Amino acid sequence: MKTKSVKAYGTESPEANLKQMQIDRREVLSKDIEIDIMYCGVCHSDLHFARNDWGMTQYPVVPGHEIVGKVTNIGSGVSKHKIGDIVAVGCLVDSCQTCDNCKNDLEQYCPEWVGTYGGYDKHLDTNTHGGYSETIVVDEAFVLSVPKHLDLAGIAPVLCAGITTWSPLRHWKVGKDSKVAIVGLGGLGHMAIKLAHALGAHVTLFSRSKNKIEDAKALGADDVIISTDQNEMEKAMGQFDVILDTVPYEHDFNPYIATLNTNGTLVVLGYLGPLEPPVVTVPMIMGRKSMAGSLIGGIAETQELLDFCGKHNITSDIEVIKIQEINEAYERMLKSDVKYRFVIDMKSLA
Amino acid sequence: MKTKSVKAYGTESPEANLKQMQIDRREVLSKDIEIDIMYCGVCHSDLHFARNDWGMTQYPVVPGHEIVGKVTNIGSGVSKHKIGDIVAVGCLVDSCQTCDNCKNDLEQYCPEWVGTYGGYDKHLDTNTHGGYSETIVVDEAFVLSVPKHLDLAGIAPVLCAGITTWSPLRHWKVGKDSKVAIVGLGGLGHMAIKLAHALGAHVTLFSRSKNKIEDAKALGADDVIISTDQNEMEKAMGQFDVILDTVPYEHDFNPYIATLNTNGTLVVLGYLGPLEPPVVTVPMIMGRKSMAGSLIGGIAETQELLDFCGKHNITSDIEVIKIQEINEAYERMLKSDVKYRFVIDMKSLA
Repeated sequence: MKTKSVKAYGTESPEANLKQMQIDRREVLSKDIEIDIMYCGVCHSDLHFARNDWGMTQYPVVPGHEIVGKVTNIGSGVSKHKIGDIVAVGCLVDSCQTCDNCKNDLEQYCPEWVGTYGGYDKHLDTNTHGGYSETIVVDEAFVLSVPKHLDLAGIAPVLCAGITTWSPLRHWKVGKDSKVAIVGLGGLGHMAIKLAHALGAHVTLFSRSKNKIEDAKALGADDVIISTDQNEMEKAMGQFDVILDTVPYEHDFNPYIATLNTNGTLVVLGYLGPLEPPVVTVPMIMGRKSMAGSLIGGIAETQELLDFCGKHNITSDIEVIKIQEINEAYERMLKSDVKYRFVIDMKSLA
Repeated sequence: MKTKSVKAYGTESPEANLKQMQIDRREVLSKDIEIDIMYCGVCHSDLHFARNDWGMTQYPVVPGHEIVGKVTNIGSGVSKHKIGDIVAVGCLVDSCQTCDNCKNDLEQYCPEWVGTYGGYDKHLDTNTHGGYSETIVVDEAFVLSVPKHLDLAGIAPVLCAGITTWSPLRHWKVGKDSKVAIVGLGGLGHMAIKLAHALGAHVTLFSRSKNKIEDAKALGADDVIISTDQNEMEKAMGQFDVILDTVPYEHDFNPYIATLNTNGTLVVLGYLGPLEPPVVTVPMIMGRKSMAGSLIGGIAETQELLDFCGKHNITSDIEVIKIQEINEAYERMLKSDVKYRFVIDMKSLA
């Protein structure tokens, strides 16, 4: 297969900083779209993957799955996009397209889904490489349209942080009569507040810190509950229809389950691991409450979100960086020192 | 308030055996129905409550919330039932009737619901007393109609074991296209198999023991998976839409969550306590799987179930005992030595 060598930023070991490297991109096949990458958001998963925190990284790794760019070339069979279009690519670049999940627009739950980085690239028989690079070549089925009037840097995080919160808001039917709570105010949390608010829901942020009250309200929260304040937590009992828990580290889910209404659901989005301390089943049984997980979203749903963002003028609050600042950005991200997402201006790689 | 003294079986301390005693029943108020109790099922909760396993028992306690009997007297305002009718009373004898849950036929989640025994009897300012007695007086809103052609002893367990499994089957929309699994084959489990089968679902029993295969299939199970067999469990991955977990003691939920399909839900019915070992969130997130709880059912839903049992000729498989055998029955129940529910013939108390 014909390939092109392009500039990228990645790492060859868990301990090493990210640095500039060359990677191969395939030349466009019939259904392929070649994209000149303009912006790429920086997701916590990028860092986990670069450092092999999940024990499944194959090196070299080039992270990045919040990609916005311009179409520069298309295959002969492409019908969805044309040269010059502003498009986006999120966390998926392939799936089997034949299983029940794929048929139901749930490609993210396809057993054979291919991540934008760290997946298996069947064309090149190597790892897929993500958006910290000049260009990417993606099957048109996984390329999304971007509303042109939005800030293109600010739309990048919608492709992961946005869809990860949008998909459960839609699946659990959040709308005007819903009482929604968000746990944690980071990349996911700030998008969750904006989106739930735009859907017409009453939105509450659970936060450990009073410092976040003003920011949360500016983002669209109606209320902020300080989760370390026992009184406030007791007053909140039995209130919420849906809680999106975006906290990425081990924490106690029980206090949040107590604040669910009958039939309410706590959706875990951020924390991959065992439940510690253990969840107590009594309140689940006594109120038909659920605890669930949810992973990004399907392609059609991601397009729905981009269109919704276009209609409601929603983008992520971001700090634009150069690719050469990525290692420092990772360190700041670990300290939650970003409001609320770093986005790389990929011109800096040129 | 005028009262009548009637014979009952109960206990005055956690350590004591149940014995005959006298309790007071109120004379019928305007909306009340007086019932001559014919049969009362024996639920695990009866034993937990008698022995104060949940730390909330007030003595004396008279258990029993699977009650079938004949109407002997009605208040002047009663319209739902008449003298001579065969009726049933389940786990609830009162609720606020004004909260959202009550309005939505979810009295079991009303913050003020009154249990058939061990609740607060506002009329007599004492504990409510259950079905191990000659008669009971209940507001007509909590009295159900029984299809007369069914075995009246066999219908008693439907009032708790039945509705506890029926309510989640209905809430999670089990029907012809559903793949359902049941964990555990006891009082709840055997009703769950019968009901899910009658709803047209494909039904699988998870059991630790090969001895139960034949029984499960006779009850309506299409398949039995031996949960201690690693091969069988691996083959079962990703299959089930709904799993009803009826096991009343601490156990690992993770192997069952692994067998859920995308969007599947594990409903915990039997075990009140913390999750040990902890549930792992990864499969919940990677497959939008849920874990939920569910408690008995509302009054309208319980009537729906009784009508469904009438239509499909479903009753519980039972062993009829005399009230004087109750202490022995408790010991056998602790050893799961019953297929599948004890029911007391209350004539034995006369």
